[in-house]
Amino acid sequence: MDNNINNAKMVEHITSMEEDSAKWYTDVVKQAELIDYSTVRGCMILRPYGYAIWENIQKELDKAFKETGHENVYMPLLIPETLLQKEKDHVEGFAPEVAWVTHGGSEKLTERLCIRPTSETLFCEHYSRIINSYRDLPKLYNQWCSVVRWEKTTRPFLRSLEFLWQEGHTIHETSEQAIEETKRMLNIYADFYQNQLAIPVIKGQKTEKEKFAGALITYTVEAMMHDGKALQGGTSHYFGDGFAKTFNIKFTDRENKLQYPHQTSWGISTRSIGAIIMTHGDNNGLVLPPKIAPIQVVIIPVAQHKEEVVKKSIELKEQLLSLYRVAIDLSDNSPGWKFAQYEMKGVPLRIELGPRDLEKNQCVIVRRDNREKYFIPLENVESKIRELLQEVHNGIWNKAYKNMKDRTFEIDSVEELKNIFSKTTGFVKTGWCENRECEGRLKEEIGITSRCQLFDQEDVQSKCILCGRPAKKQIIWGKAY
Amino acid sequence: MDNNINNAKMVEHITSMEEDSAKWYTDVVKQAELIDYSTVRGCMILRPYGYAIWENIQKELDKAFKETGHENVYMPLLIPETLLQKEKDHVEGFAPEVAWVTHGGSEKLTERLCIRPTSETLFCEHYSRIINSYRDLPKLYNQWCSVVRWEKTTRPFLRSLEFLWQEGHTIHETSEQAIEETKRMLNIYADFYQNQLAIPVIKGQKTEKEKFAGALITYTVEAMMHDGKALQGGTSHYFGDGFAKTFNIKFTDRENKLQYPHQTSWGISTRSIGAIIMTHGDNNGLVLPPKIAPIQVVIIPVAQHKEEVVKKSIELKEQLLSLYRVAIDLSDNSPGWKFAQYEMKGVPLRIELGPRDLEKNQCVIVRRDNREKYFIPLENVESKIRELLQEVHNGIWNKAYKNMKDRTFEIDSVEELKNIFSKTTGFVKTGWCENRECEGRLKEEIGITSRCQLFDQEDVQSKCILCGRPAKKQIIWGKAY
Repeated sequence: MDNNINNAKMVEHITSMEEDSAKWYTDVVKQAELIDYSTVRGCMILRPYGYAIWENIQKELDKAFKETGHENVYMPLLIPETLLQKEKDHVEGFAPEVAWVTHGGSEKLTERLCIRPTSETLFCEHYSRIINSYRDLPKLYNQWCSVVRWEKTTRPFLRSLEFLWQEGHTIHETSEQAIEETKRMLNIYADFYQNQLAIPVIKGQKTEKEKFAGALITYTVEAMMHDGKALQGGTSHYFGDGFAKTFNIKFTDRENKLQYPHQTSWGISTRSIGAIIMTHGDNNGLVLPPKIAPIQVVIIPVAQHKEEVVKKSIELKEQLLSLYRVAIDLSDNSPGWKFAQYEMKGVPLRIELGPRDLEKNQCVIVRRDNREKYFIPLENVESKIRELLQEVHNGIWNKAYKNMKDRTFEIDSVEELKNIFSKTTGFVKTGWCENRECEGRLKEEIGITSRCQLFDQEDVQSKCILCGRPAKKQIIWGKAY
Repeated sequence: MDNNINNAKMVEHITSMEEDSAKWYTDVVKQAELIDYSTVRGCMILRPYGYAIWENIQKELDKAFKETGHENVYMPLLIPETLLQKEKDHVEGFAPEVAWVTHGGSEKLTERLCIRPTSETLFCEHYSRIINSYRDLPKLYNQWCSVVRWEKTTRPFLRSLEFLWQEGHTIHETSEQAIEETKRMLNIYADFYQNQLAIPVIKGQKTEKEKFAGALITYTVEAMMHDGKALQGGTSHYFGDGFAKTFNIKFTDRENKLQYPHQTSWGISTRSIGAIIMTHGDNNGLVLPPKIAPIQVVIIPVAQHKEEVVKKSIELKEQLLSLYRVAIDLSDNSPGWKFAQYEMKGVPLRIELGPRDLEKNQCVIVRRDNREKYFIPLENVESKIRELLQEVHNGIWNKAYKNMKDRTFEIDSVEELKNIFSKTTGFVKTGWCENRECEGRLKEEIGITSRCQLFDQEDVQSKCILCGRPAKKQIIWGKAY
């Protein structure tokens, strides 16, 4: 860990959220050493601390994917233009935002290749070669990779030219099985956000306008950031047999008839790190969910010139190492500097150990999220840490949940809606006629978009708030990141 | 696992090594379902079984890197042309073989970007921003990613346009520390090849002609394939302070003076999977080293219509699951088909379980490498598997080691050398004057290249076999993949 920034310099560099939320965000990602900017516009360097968060995210998701029978594969980085163009809706969605390779060495290519923005077309081509019979189905594949989308405006983690993600791709005998898979993976994403990242999410279905290019159905998990804006956390798409028809993927079914199989894809990206920062962070920096924090507990000796303090601190570290991700800071920076530094880095628990604590055979544990302080007998430290990590998880979850609840409004007129968004930002639940024009009006007039149609459609209001016609769906609106 | 190829079809498709070694290789990578070809020339699709081998390789190496203090990071995929061109030797080595991005969406870029062939330049630019003092050193970084090199002729794993690898990049206060790191990582590679992949390697130093573009020293581990050809298994480079000077990376040292730091980089790729196939494979297909085999033990019930056999086979699988990577094949293919299938896939041990075995409370274990058969009482099966996996490892190691020993020749004339390479292929040890022209002659005349200068330079022969002048180095020559 890099401990060379002095305290004064660090404090000086954090803009408060209230002053400038966007500046606060970029200050935090830089100061917490998650990223560095590169000379390539819109591409970021993931530094060790940022990448370690991604590794923990990968570990949890990869386990969940494998437990549900998925296998990892790796497809090429490059897609020939003709291949990308095969599926009409898909290419319309992606062609405007891909990077084109036109030369290999000094030679001009006869056909342009794009850097994958997503890999449906490559998977389809592969499927067409390996699938012949119902015995070959399902194929449940996933790949971890980076993708490139030529975005105009970028922000670290939230929107960048290149980002890391996983893309799941599956293919099934029946439509029912594919839809079941699409929902299963959405639920895995929802569980992941809620149980690992302590971020509450709303599950729902994207409208026709907002769904993935080429999909029949797109499911989504939507999270609310601290400022009330919405962030799409992960999506899961059902393609029907559209891609199969385009790519001529056929199989002999159990009745010996030729059929088109049904496909899905689903993805989650380093955006999830942006969601962590924007959901839990505060004016002292990051607040990391304990389950994916690279360092769960940092030990900071106080009065480090005393040999006994250092010795005991190291002993404590050794003792905890097999149970938690634990670090110790023995640098010659002041304890005050270290406290600020690890708060900035969002470490869930800090242990302070000084001469007086040693006399009393205790240590001090401080929670990152609410700065509550505990004096803990050393013999209880292992179990107390377990308990406090869970409490930090619950604490940040409750705070985020309260924020989402407080900022979710159920209304029945456009005036009310405009009134809400003139004062604050949040989720607004309304009835909707399912008409694309009505949906578009809100974007044009006040820059809000539909986030999702709720899974639970029991309380649909009687009319569309926009046109007054009978409502067909209950929908959530919000300002999106 | 895909069990739909019938036996006849499979056997038909394997060319024997003796008939056509190149065809044997491509048959194996396809039939064992390691890869599929894609429409992008020279790019391969890593299928689940192939990717699982890479995941096991990654797990072992990543552990070794982290145990030696390295941290993972992620650098952008794209490098601006001006950045790549900063280091003269480096760009000369790589510019002829990079893929160029010239358009983003519909917009022509003002500067071309290349897809990383390797990331030294990106790391250097990052270092120049984050390194100021000796307290910032060393930085011990690694990244797992894919790189693109526009090769003319390609072969799966051995040489492809895009390949997966890890690239370590470190930066140090002193030259001594950087050289020590370069050697440390070479030793990690050598240990990995020998202890995990059961592949003997020779450690040495590349000549000036063969070293990495921009490096002062390149260390290498060289392996010998079953046909006597050489494969460069992994390399570790010392850059001195050349890149630091070019990229203006400076630090204040312990005496408060400005200094240039010293750098290294080191990499190993999916070529290592090619090395596994070409070292251990035989005419029945793959032979996988037990330590990285996705399936270490496959259980195949015999007389599957007997309920008791299936029940016991499943029980055995459950019992072994926490100890080994174990699979069971309950498909309706014949036992004979299954035997051939898992031999093709190189699974180190096969367990056969039939009604007669059940009567005797035993099972049959068959080794992949030499087909030796063991009748093992079921109560001893756990420990016997451990023992046999180690024996398979030792067995394939010994075979590879013997091949390397038998095909390594110590000679002292060009005639002898030509004579050897007219009959066989192997490693040839000779004295060498260190002259680049002498080195080049062997490549021109008989297509062999210097593999490495041995670390142990004690027995240097008196003269260069090419020019007859006094020899300065003992060197290994070979035909390279």
